[in-house]
Amino acid sequence: MPVGTLATVKGVSPAQLADTGAQMVLANTYHLHLQPGEGIVAEAGGLHRFMGWSGPLLTDSGGFQVFSLGAINRISDHGVVFRSPRDGRRIELTPERSMEIQMALGADVAMAFDQCPPYPATEADVAAASRRTHAWLERCLASHNRPDQALFGIVQGGCFPALRRESARVVASLGLPGIAVGGVSVGEPVEEMHRIVREVGPLLPEPIPHYLMGVGSLREMAVAVAEGFDLFDCVLPTRLGRHGSALVGGERWNLKNARFRHDHTPLDPSCPCPACRQHSRAYLHHLVRSEEMLGRTLLSLHNLTTLLRFTTAMARAIREGCFAEDFAPWDPASPAAHTW
Amino acid sequence: MPVGTLATVKGVSPAQLADTGAQMVLANTYHLHLQPGEGIVAEAGGLHRFMGWSGPLLTDSGGFQVFSLGAINRISDHGVVFRSPRDGRRIELTPERSMEIQMALGADVAMAFDQCPPYPATEADVAAASRRTHAWLERCLASHNRPDQALFGIVQGGCFPALRRESARVVASLGLPGIAVGGVSVGEPVEEMHRIVREVGPLLPEPIPHYLMGVGSLREMAVAVAEGFDLFDCVLPTRLGRHGSALVGGERWNLKNARFRHDHTPLDPSCPCPACRQHSRAYLHHLVRSEEMLGRTLLSLHNLTTLLRFTTAMARAIREGCFAEDFAPWDPASPAAHTW
Repeated sequence: MPVGTLATVKGVSPAQLADTGAQMVLANTYHLHLQPGEGIVAEAGGLHRFMGWSGPLLTDSGGFQVFSLGAINRISDHGVVFRSPRDGRRIELTPERSMEIQMALGADVAMAFDQCPPYPATEADVAAASRRTHAWLERCLASHNRPDQALFGIVQGGCFPALRRESARVVASLGLPGIAVGGVSVGEPVEEMHRIVREVGPLLPEPIPHYLMGVGSLREMAVAVAEGFDLFDCVLPTRLGRHGSALVGGERWNLKNARFRHDHTPLDPSCPCPACRQHSRAYLHHLVRSEEMLGRTLLSLHNLTTLLRFTTAMARAIREGCFAEDFAPWDPASPAAHTW
Repeated sequence: MPVGTLATVKGVSPAQLADTGAQMVLANTYHLHLQPGEGIVAEAGGLHRFMGWSGPLLTDSGGFQVFSLGAINRISDHGVVFRSPRDGRRIELTPERSMEIQMALGADVAMAFDQCPPYPATEADVAAASRRTHAWLERCLASHNRPDQALFGIVQGGCFPALRRESARVVASLGLPGIAVGGVSVGEPVEEMHRIVREVGPLLPEPIPHYLMGVGSLREMAVAVAEGFDLFDCVLPTRLGRHGSALVGGERWNLKNARFRHDHTPLDPSCPCPACRQHSRAYLHHLVRSEEMLGRTLLSLHNLTTLLRFTTAMARAIREGCFAEDFAPWDPASPAAHTW
């Protein structure tokens, strides 16, 4: 899922986004609550109509931003009180309020309001956050009453195997239409993340979608798909694009680099995106050097296309029975890296 | 002609640009000489290939920027010496050098290197600039030797009728494939511009294209088309778009204005652009408020589409014999304003 924080995937029009192969898009409850406010989105007929995206949409719960962007006044079992970074206004977010906002936004999938502990954190702190996350999930379920919107629960538990197992058991027991694993990609070593994915993946109910939150690099997605994960989100492709970087052949290239000045070849000859089909590395270098908006847009489109080609190739490999051979464990240097 | 200063119409992809109805695009010799340099563009196979635009392209001569952006060290009959605003490097631009650069860039149309006097200026200064412009035009003609590129001459003469007549006579006498009127839209009152257009238009050779430089508002284009002008360029549609403003019904609307917050209607229901077809005023307001790139892109596309619908409608009216009735003199409040 490309990330469309403020009801737009940054720098990319809905038509361009569809051309990248994107299906589902994530939008941020916290940011949309602050601007323009869920009331405006509801007036417009919901997020799909407001942002002009007819494909599936998911909203996060706002919890991750509340806990990671700071300015928190108070956390209690009731909820979180924080100050708006826009106008200093006091805002309270609770499981009930998050559901209310997400129901007004009207995405296809709403996420439960959880407490995502920072990394590192003590086992006691992570256990407390897990317990609160489970209690809040019950309250989310009790207050969510929009039948055309799915509510996904979130497994927490940090890097503690017993807490992860317990959290997976609790969340899996509720008969939800989808389940997510949160609290990864928050600063832990990548090996820790792999370990969590390998431990928790097999504990999740098989028939429903499994969503690994905040993960979107090729290797980590391949590792997670091997453990049964289906959904990912990541700001990286558009953030890298805005900063002039491209994902090519498993590497990150800074297009501002002088080595591209005279390079009139396509960015990635195998890629079907507009940046690669219609332009050269030298032109992209020029746009980035000149701080032209088109450079950011083209590199964002390329990076999104690259990740979506990869996930699409994994889906095809699963259907064709060759996923284990081609993608698990996936290594950018393997021959399979050149075939997807 | 939308303006693509640095080989990109700001914020707009070539595919999006084609959808606005744009045919010919202008690029700036001065800016492209500084970045990336005409050598890189020539290596790429010329400006069309470099920027991915297969339609007609025109480059200005660089003269207007040299004279308007300041940092000039010396003007003489030989040429102009100035300092690069990028690195302080001393650059000399002469008629021969401008031709060399424009031939390397390889647009379909190159413009003669002229001296555009400021407004206001004394008759003696304008006369001197005109004489120099004519002498430089002869040198441009002598050094331009790219047969697949047309060279247009430029009529100067400021607000002085006798100087304008003399300049038109000199430039028209050279059998050029196109002729431009410069030195308008430089700060003079709009009535002065209309007077110049009405005086000079009829003096230009009928079979070749007439280009009114730097003009792109609806009324001024209609006045000029009535006097036989064919080509215009203006940064206004994209500059206004980047600053959050839209051209609607002959007015400029600032989409940041709170009156659009709850307005879920299309920006301009008669407009076929993506901003008007797929989005609402409230969404555009939200994008502008959030400083999202997509807001700038959508408003730029709308403004370009608006101007190009207008020029296309004028062309159709000429073919159908109703231009005088519908467009000359064109008034945004007239019934015709609602039919194009």
